[in-house]
Amino acid sequence: MRKICVVVGSRANYSSIKSAMRAIRNHPDLELQVVVGASALLDRYGSVVDLIERDGFNPAARVYMLVEGETPLTMAKSTGLGLLELPSIFEQLKPDFVLTVGDRFETMATTLAAAYMNLPLAHTMGGEVSGTIDESIRHAVTKFAHIHFPACSQAADRIIKMGERSEDVYLVGCPRIDLVAEVMKNERNGLGPDLFSEGVGELIDLCKPFLIVSQHSVTTEYGEGEKQITETLMAVKSLDIPAIVLWPNADAGSEDVSRGIRKLREHHHDLKMHFFKNLSLDTFISLMRRAVCIVGNSSSAIREGAFVGVPAVNVGTRQQGRQRGNNVVDVDHSREAIGGAIQEQVRHGPYPSQSIYGDGNAGRHIAEILSKCSVRIQKRIRY
Amino acid sequence: MRKICVVVGSRANYSSIKSAMRAIRNHPDLELQVVVGASALLDRYGSVVDLIERDGFNPAARVYMLVEGETPLTMAKSTGLGLLELPSIFEQLKPDFVLTVGDRFETMATTLAAAYMNLPLAHTMGGEVSGTIDESIRHAVTKFAHIHFPACSQAADRIIKMGERSEDVYLVGCPRIDLVAEVMKNERNGLGPDLFSEGVGELIDLCKPFLIVSQHSVTTEYGEGEKQITETLMAVKSLDIPAIVLWPNADAGSEDVSRGIRKLREHHHDLKMHFFKNLSLDTFISLMRRAVCIVGNSSSAIREGAFVGVPAVNVGTRQQGRQRGNNVVDVDHSREAIGGAIQEQVRHGPYPSQSIYGDGNAGRHIAEILSKCSVRIQKRIRY
Amino acid sequence: MRKICVVVGSRANYSSIKSAMRAIRNHPDLELQVVVGASALLDRYGSVVDLIERDGFNPAARVYMLVEGETPLTMAKSTGLGLLELPSIFEQLKPDFVLTVGDRFETMATTLAAAYMNLPLAHTMGGEVSGTIDESIRHAVTKFAHIHFPACSQAADRIIKMGERSEDVYLVGCPRIDLVAEVMKNERNGLGPDLFSEGVGELIDLCKPFLIVSQHSVTTEYGEGEKQITETLMAVKSLDIPAIVLWPNADAGSEDVSRGIRKLREHHHDLKMHFFKNLSLDTFISLMRRAVCIVGNSSSAIREGAFVGVPAVNVGTRQQGRQRGNNVVDVDHSREAIGGAIQEQVRHGPYPSQSIYGDGNAGRHIAEILSKCSVRIQKRIRY
Amino acid sequence: MRKICVVVGSRANYSSIKSAMRAIRNHPDLELQVVVGASALLDRYGSVVDLIERDGFNPAARVYMLVEGETPLTMAKSTGLGLLELPSIFEQLKPDFVLTVGDRFETMATTLAAAYMNLPLAHTMGGEVSGTIDESIRHAVTKFAHIHFPACSQAADRIIKMGERSEDVYLVGCPRIDLVAEVMKNERNGLGPDLFSEGVGELIDLCKPFLIVSQHSVTTEYGEGEKQITETLMAVKSLDIPAIVLWPNADAGSEDVSRGIRKLREHHHDLKMHFFKNLSLDTFISLMRRAVCIVGNSSSAIREGAFVGVPAVNVGTRQQGRQRGNNVVDVDHSREAIGGAIQEQVRHGPYPSQSIYGDGNAGRHIAEILSKCSVRIQKRIRY
Repeated sequence: MRKICVVVGSRANYSSIKSAMRAIRNHPDLELQVVVGASALLDRYGSVVDLIERDGFNPAARVYMLVEGETPLTMAKSTGLGLLELPSIFEQLKPDFVLTVGDRFETMATTLAAAYMNLPLAHTMGGEVSGTIDESIRHAVTKFAHIHFPACSQAADRIIKMGERSEDVYLVGCPRIDLVAEVMKNERNGLGPDLFSEGVGELIDLCKPFLIVSQHSVTTEYGEGEKQITETLMAVKSLDIPAIVLWPNADAGSEDVSRGIRKLREHHHDLKMHFFKNLSLDTFISLMRRAVCIVGNSSSAIREGAFVGVPAVNVGTRQQGRQRGNNVVDVDHSREAIGGAIQEQVRHGPYPSQSIYGDGNAGRHIAEILSKCSVRIQKRIRY
Repeated sequence: MRKICVVVGSRANYSSIKSAMRAIRNHPDLELQVVVGASALLDRYGSVVDLIERDGFNPAARVYMLVEGETPLTMAKSTGLGLLELPSIFEQLKPDFVLTVGDRFETMATTLAAAYMNLPLAHTMGGEVSGTIDESIRHAVTKFAHIHFPACSQAADRIIKMGERSEDVYLVGCPRIDLVAEVMKNERNGLGPDLFSEGVGELIDLCKPFLIVSQHSVTTEYGEGEKQITETLMAVKSLDIPAIVLWPNADAGSEDVSRGIRKLREHHHDLKMHFFKNLSLDTFISLMRRAVCIVGNSSSAIREGAFVGVPAVNVGTRQQGRQRGNNVVDVDHSREAIGGAIQEQVRHGPYPSQSIYGDGNAGRHIAEILSKCSVRIQKRIRY
Repeated sequence: MRKICVVVGSRANYSSIKSAMRAIRNHPDLELQVVVGASALLDRYGSVVDLIERDGFNPAARVYMLVEGETPLTMAKSTGLGLLELPSIFEQLKPDFVLTVGDRFETMATTLAAAYMNLPLAHTMGGEVSGTIDESIRHAVTKFAHIHFPACSQAADRIIKMGERSEDVYLVGCPRIDLVAEVMKNERNGLGPDLFSEGVGELIDLCKPFLIVSQHSVTTEYGEGEKQITETLMAVKSLDIPAIVLWPNADAGSEDVSRGIRKLREHHHDLKMHFFKNLSLDTFISLMRRAVCIVGNSSSAIREGAFVGVPAVNVGTRQQGRQRGNNVVDVDHSREAIGGAIQEQVRHGPYPSQSIYGDGNAGRHIAEILSKCSVRIQKRIRY
Repeated sequence: MRKICVVVGSRANYSSIKSAMRAIRNHPDLELQVVVGASALLDRYGSVVDLIERDGFNPAARVYMLVEGETPLTMAKSTGLGLLELPSIFEQLKPDFVLTVGDRFETMATTLAAAYMNLPLAHTMGGEVSGTIDESIRHAVTKFAHIHFPACSQAADRIIKMGERSEDVYLVGCPRIDLVAEVMKNERNGLGPDLFSEGVGELIDLCKPFLIVSQHSVTTEYGEGEKQITETLMAVKSLDIPAIVLWPNADAGSEDVSRGIRKLREHHHDLKMHFFKNLSLDTFISLMRRAVCIVGNSSSAIREGAFVGVPAVNVGTRQQGRQRGNNVVDVDHSREAIGGAIQEQVRHGPYPSQSIYGDGNAGRHIAEILSKCSVRIQKRIRY
């Protein structure tokens, strides 16, 4: 009976690993341990921990580790805080594997705690390319991880090129696509009548054309967030298409983006926009299927977007280097460019589904591999 | 005037970067900022900070970050503690570059603090291969660093293979060799008459054949340290050659090694050994030049050893993968094997000097490059 | 030249010590060192640090120490975080006195860091009685402090009763009253024409009767905050008098209070209320002078209120035990009781000024005493 | 079923609370939760955690919280580290009471974590008077504690004078005396034939006159420890009576005391002394019963010493203000004074037993009271 410890640090994290958590819990040879930390615990990021519990997972520990400030400095300190507490938790839980997700800053705390304590570390979504500090974090986690679960073939190749042993690299697809596939099977999923009782702003008629806007701060462009979101929102406003707008995640600089949104709301009372702090993935995918275009710099537009086939306008550098399907058009932070690209995508309409990031079975593959794989705890670069 | 911040965390760290610190301080276009932390502050590791001050460097900040325990768990927590404090220090000092050294666990705190705060990070001694968690740490630091200063050509090649841009990789040699070269120029350096007033144990006659023993714990073989050092010391004891023995560094497991040494001392009152907590590099190199053989698992035997030409017996896995000169014989943790290899090396005598790890100008090269190089703060893997 | 280090952790903190900081800076025998931490650094609490700099103080260090969550758990962790960083700062600054203010949770970090490091500790506003955990914090700080600056005579007596030496207790009054006295001398202070360009909500006509509402969470009644603020705001709404409402401070539970305010705003679009995150003390006092009544559980209504003579309705337990002037009526968390008491106070009108908490010279007294007093670093209870 | 959480941070801590832990575990209405932290976890302080487990207690959590350095600065940081982790542990364990012991620096971490989280806090050994920072810590803990268990009547009176409610103060005696009473009933306890296989130094013949030396650093006299222990040991050496010497505890400055001991050992090879890192209380009390005198500044000589009746020479300020029996003679840090006082006490011989610090039932009283007492979580000073 192998014990697999998953550390969930944010809403995005959770939907990126949920199907694997489910498969681990259901696997006869595995025992699941869940640790919830960082923004996943916080009310103002939507109390993801409550969602996790409603999904039937029972957190073994909670790590309040975010230092207030949302600056690069506090992002570093938050990682330090996590790194002070996770070791005690791992000592208590004694997992056979620690499974860490992606490339957010708190992932580094999980990674170092596990690796320094000689615990086998498995990593999902390694080997991809993107902007911001996430790019460095992701590859550094790869250099600590013993088992790699990349989501696409280019990523798998990249991990091996970086010096990892090919026998430790398992191309499984992205567990988020597992959830997307489930939603796609089920027409009515997620769009209850009281959708707009959450969030603030206008009611959006989902039977008419509407946009989705999801734009986060870029940590290496700290201080630019307010201007960037303003360009995007002004482009949307000028097109006169109603839009569903998501608040940014907790990265350094998110306060800038939030301020941009708040100011726009205060100064323009006629916005045809509804603002959500968080949406369940079900709801989000269901909306994505109906939206005429998704705008911003979220990875979802590219990853899930390819599977869903939604037209996407990707703004700025945040997703630079990420493998794309046909559904994506890239533009700069200019309201004219953004507006033009949205119009073009609306004209084009939906794209055919592409399976670049998996076919819906990533979680099951991960659980199966973790139940059987052998690990060489002393890593050594191949060349 | 570029400000270069160097974080020194241990005695080994200091001698690995001292010549670069000197060159930075003396460079007309650079300003040196020194932060001292971890074991470099502690009495029981020889108060390296006092040495740093005596060398004319004025620490801008001190970071007490070691959590007591010397286990993998406390090694992780210590890194967390460093990561809580270094960001404030960097915010205060506002360096143009952070220069971090090698691959010890506290290096990761420096690395994350700098990288998360979008400060250009330069890294010495990347790209090498070794055992223990240092192997993962070193390569992970490479994935965060913007400028690389590898010490040997194989290491430089490896860094580029890992996806770094070749224009960011500068093969400069190892700054420790700069110090070794200085000592080699000066016959009488470091061996004052009161050498043996420090440390405990027998007086060793340096005009007759003697050994040096320097053996550290292997973090991925946690719990084995006592047995391992006992094999080495029993091998030395059986040969009846006097030996200078160094206490281990502060890695997880060092307490095991220390206990092994203490027990041997309590049970064998006739040891022809002298035990030093710390030796200045000057003294150490001077001793190395005269020793008939150096035994253990310290990297010095391989790196400086190649330049000095001292016969070396390397024990166990700790230095696996490190580029070697002709002076090294590798053996397992068996007293018979160790004893045999020492005898063989004593018979062979000194080796010709090899410049694998630099020719004595690394520090000057580093300063010069830091004064001029340009940096792309947003990293992106090459492939 | 004695160095006096003041640690400012919040907006309230700052106005409680500002006049002393000014007097210390201007004193020929004193040098002022300012450390800014906790909520005083954060955008969402109004970036008090910017205000501090605009007032001509130059922070020597900044301590990001708030752990997100605003629960009792994170309040404890935040104190721990402060306690990890303040010692290094004190070691760097080497103050002759640390001056700490009042009874907020971060005060404990300042207190322990100073006391454990054998630095003489001076404390303002000790010896008072109140509700919440502040009651315990305040008296515990007294047990660590070497010099006491109580704000009122009852407090001074209480400090001596607790076992402190009477020669270490200096009744100086409250430095906040120094600022109030300045505002009172100057009729037009603080109420510029663009007052309502800050904050959100209705414009309030300051020439007609209006209320001020300032209500914080009660840490020992954690979880009640939303209900409590709702009672107060519904009472105000029912009276149909326009109101200026302040958002709560950063105590555990503040998120509850904020949520109460947000919900009310979403559900009642006809509120005659304007909501401010922060007001400068100048503005606040000027508003207090004109308000027909101040409602809530802020200490200002009682302390500054006595000097100003504003009718006050104090709700709930938070100010229990605080010395009151004639201007205060106490009620429970019931909208009926609150509404009735407001009506009664509005009928009564302004009260005569009382000097219970000082006469406007506290800051100067504190500086003078710190320049001359002797300290017995080894404390010992008197009985 | 009330859950009582005891936090044990050191060897001294453990013997001060062990009998209460036993009584809580055996009480039908109580459940015991044990948290072990600080020096109680560390090999170099004798792995008290192993002892705790051998005594049948099962630690629910371990908190590595000591920051290396043993300076006032690291003592403060260690408290901060504890304060970062204990809240998560308390949240996990959800105790009905936290029981904290005495006045060591880590006690403050337990105290703040519990109090800030609104957990009822019980405190043993409050109200006493001593030197060092412990004096302030002890009284500050009293100001946070909801239930007080003083060890002697003077202490109980003092707690009430400080403003605590008399109904919250329970005079129960000191739980250490419970253990002493057990040892006293049993003549052969603790002195096995292999006693001197532990520690280092000479064998002491326990049938002939011998001394015990136990001297710790004084935190408010930081830097004096080496000189102070040297005076004491030189006095003992000059009398030519064999002595059992204990290494100091982990307070700031202990490294100074240890250095003093180490230097003496290196320079005087003819010492009639045996050095122990730690002794079980059983062994210690059995030795105390036979010793002709106990010398130093440990509280044991005064507290347990009164019950045992051993002649004691108390050196320096550390125990100033502690209630004494007839067995104590006080002297300064002068080898002449110390030597003279020892000779005087040896001439006098054993004193009659006194029950100042309890009669051997403290643990049972504490358990019984915790099972029944009611708590007012909102504290308020009485006057």
